[in-house]
Amino acid sequence: MLPHIQLSDLSDVPRYRQLYDQIRLAIVSKAIPDGERLPATRELAGQLGLNRTTVSAAYDLLINDGLISGQVGRGSFVTNQAVSSNSGLNWQQLLNAGLPAPAFVADSDISFVASRPSELLFPLEDFRRTCQEVISSGDAANILQLGTPAGYAPLRRYLLEAARQEGTGRPTDDVVVTSGCQQALDLIQRSLVSAGNIVAIEDPVYPGLKNAFAVGGARLIGVPVGRDGVDLEALARMLKSERPRLLVITSSFQNPTGASIPANARAALLRLAQEHRVVLVENDIYGDLRYEGERVPTLKQMDTTGDTILLRSFSKTAFPGLRVGWIVAPREVTRRIAEAKQWCDLHTDQLSQAVLLRFCESGRLASHRARMLTAGKERLRAAMDACTRHLGGIAAFTRPEGGMSLWVTFVVRMDTADMLSRAQREGVAYLPGRHFAVTKEHRSSLRLSFAGLPPDRIEQGVAVLGRLFGEETRRLRAVLDSEPEPAVV
Amino acid sequence: MLPHIQLSDLSDVPRYRQLYDQIRLAIVSKAIPDGERLPATRELAGQLGLNRTTVSAAYDLLINDGLISGQVGRGSFVTNQAVSSNSGLNWQQLLNAGLPAPAFVADSDISFVASRPSELLFPLEDFRRTCQEVISSGDAANILQLGTPAGYAPLRRYLLEAARQEGTGRPTDDVVVTSGCQQALDLIQRSLVSAGNIVAIEDPVYPGLKNAFAVGGARLIGVPVGRDGVDLEALARMLKSERPRLLVITSSFQNPTGASIPANARAALLRLAQEHRVVLVENDIYGDLRYEGERVPTLKQMDTTGDTILLRSFSKTAFPGLRVGWIVAPREVTRRIAEAKQWCDLHTDQLSQAVLLRFCESGRLASHRARMLTAGKERLRAAMDACTRHLGGIAAFTRPEGGMSLWVTFVVRMDTADMLSRAQREGVAYLPGRHFAVTKEHRSSLRLSFAGLPPDRIEQGVAVLGRLFGEETRRLRAVLDSEPEPAVV
Repeated sequence: MLPHIQLSDLSDVPRYRQLYDQIRLAIVSKAIPDGERLPATRELAGQLGLNRTTVSAAYDLLINDGLISGQVGRGSFVTNQAVSSNSGLNWQQLLNAGLPAPAFVADSDISFVASRPSELLFPLEDFRRTCQEVISSGDAANILQLGTPAGYAPLRRYLLEAARQEGTGRPTDDVVVTSGCQQALDLIQRSLVSAGNIVAIEDPVYPGLKNAFAVGGARLIGVPVGRDGVDLEALARMLKSERPRLLVITSSFQNPTGASIPANARAALLRLAQEHRVVLVENDIYGDLRYEGERVPTLKQMDTTGDTILLRSFSKTAFPGLRVGWIVAPREVTRRIAEAKQWCDLHTDQLSQAVLLRFCESGRLASHRARMLTAGKERLRAAMDACTRHLGGIAAFTRPEGGMSLWVTFVVRMDTADMLSRAQREGVAYLPGRHFAVTKEHRSSLRLSFAGLPPDRIEQGVAVLGRLFGEETRRLRAVLDSEPEPAVV
Repeated sequence: MLPHIQLSDLSDVPRYRQLYDQIRLAIVSKAIPDGERLPATRELAGQLGLNRTTVSAAYDLLINDGLISGQVGRGSFVTNQAVSSNSGLNWQQLLNAGLPAPAFVADSDISFVASRPSELLFPLEDFRRTCQEVISSGDAANILQLGTPAGYAPLRRYLLEAARQEGTGRPTDDVVVTSGCQQALDLIQRSLVSAGNIVAIEDPVYPGLKNAFAVGGARLIGVPVGRDGVDLEALARMLKSERPRLLVITSSFQNPTGASIPANARAALLRLAQEHRVVLVENDIYGDLRYEGERVPTLKQMDTTGDTILLRSFSKTAFPGLRVGWIVAPREVTRRIAEAKQWCDLHTDQLSQAVLLRFCESGRLASHRARMLTAGKERLRAAMDACTRHLGGIAAFTRPEGGMSLWVTFVVRMDTADMLSRAQREGVAYLPGRHFAVTKEHRSSLRLSFAGLPPDRIEQGVAVLGRLFGEETRRLRAVLDSEPEPAVV
């Protein structure tokens, strides 16, 4: 017999994963004996009021673990192979609970899934030339030798000098190179957050940002993001009532909404952060991808205390496959972060650090960026035109001036995760809103990452979504109209 | 006034750092007011019974933090600049306590400090050719695009196939690529250890291994390492009394001792691990560097349960500056580790993964390894001959058959950390034993990493150490002989 299954809608953990965890525990603890038959996916979905794909996803994980075996037509049986396949350890009991990645969304013909540049835009010839210069330079042996936790010294000097010239780096600041922005978030978590500390983040937000802090046991509080970025009134209330230790803000072209904070709101945000003595982390990995409108200074530039911790990366402006980002922060902070980094991975890969330095110094990054801005502008324009045309009556959507994504919220409540398989059958994929949930669920929203697709594909893809979601909206409206209001009891 | 300073000899934290932490806290908490004069280094050293360099190292960190200012001839004064330099945050209070790296030992003319290959042995032409093949291949755009947490698929397949052919990878095993072996240790800590869990490690051991687990709050227990690797009797007692969750073993050419576990002892170790149901992690990053004697199977190869988690890396056999290692382990484990990795750094740098794959497939790694083995054999031989000649009467040393280091223990008790500055003045550097301390202190020991030096430099360097430590041994023996035995009370 299955144990009593209880699924929380408010959890960060998706429901298929909650279901998997609970059945897994029951099998491993022998509450369900070997050989027992599990309910069919359709049957269990009915019992629990779940979509059948949710139950299937949980069963797939159990089959993968060797805990059940599925036989077509006969149902699924508990085999507990994971335990009995060797005389050794019970990994299911030994492993710490993980924070699973969002359910994998396979790329479709037209994929709005990943927030990344198109590889068709990569300047391969420039990259090859850069590599050749680096490996034939006199520093090649040095690059291949063991490095230092804070980063390859010539790159660090270059980034620090650039930050000073731009006005983001003060004399009291330093730079530490990280293995991409994701590691910067992890190192900040390790250096500045303890289990139980409150960390305020935007809601919705990129899962990697949320989970970098969640793995360390931080209590996450979401601050709503509107058209102009984070909602300052909600932020002020939250800072007062919750007194978070850390506030993480993506000031420009936030992921997933694409929203940017206007200059005057940035000044107000800085005053709030200072007043409440919260550590402000500015995630600025999209800031260089402005296609329209006026450039706004970073929070770090505007911060008169110099305390803001600024995160940057080459992943969005150059090549995501090379994992190089950096932190600009007061020297006390960079020093502790470099110390923590040593025990994480010794130092960031030096070949990529040297190649990206040369890519900058040779002016090739600037040329590439100019081409990215031209392509990005077209793609953003295509995405907004297509949304206006095809989603006009049924959804609201953000209007970014740069970055890689926009955020669509349907007017009638529905679950974009449930709609995904229908879209995929028609060759279109996106990331459902719930992946970005912090405090709110965002089930009726989805992220459209447009940067990887040419304008005509964007138009085609959004047209498909418009048709599917339009049908669903009409169906739901009809149901709502036909259902009598429930009695108030 | 300084607060009462209490330093522990048993702590993993070096004394200069303990002293720094306590004074820092007193300044930051205003227990010592701004403007107050601190005792001179010589004076405080006398009061606390410390070496003066220990106090100087602590003061240097405080000056670096802006907490005190040193004026020649006038002593050091509390300035608390770190707090008053801006109107903002007090980083000294906000930052989590770090685990500092071992006090930096500057490379000398003859440096036995780092356990790494000499860059003069790097096959730069082969490396350049390899890079060129990778960047001009049809997969270049793919390599530059966002990858997956478990690793670049062609490299993962290659490593898994190699592990299966060698008999280290079973059908139930999988491979996950890590950003070097240091990250493998970190990910294992995150996936299998919780704060307060007991982790058994070798004593002495490489600081990066110890600290990877210490940062997660594990309780570390050291198992003594002898000529034949870890002491099995001590291990058996410890497994019984302490019931650790994890046991981390470097089976071949352990760092720092160079000791290897013979085949029959490996079988006994596996039986012990299985009997006590401890998770066995085999760190095998030096195993390919055997210069003499017969190859011994890895624990993973001999393990009939298949549970051993095997760590490997390209850092020691190819290029330390490229951060690529890998884990071979049961699929349940690699899956959870890949999940944890996603929140640490998304994935390992793909340029280096692709370059190292090509370096293997082209046969260039095998050629390079053959040359490394020839050079390593000469260097190991030179190191052992020099130790026999110059340290014969005053120290015991290990006799490795491969790897990069040997371990020297002086017969008369002395502190090799205190002797270091004398050696450096004569152009020779090494890592003092205390850096490798777990349960025991190893103050009378030091690590000689010979792999980075040609035979004649090894001979010169060990000759200097022989002379200095010989003089100190004679001095200490004379003091001991002249001191009357204390009364037993």
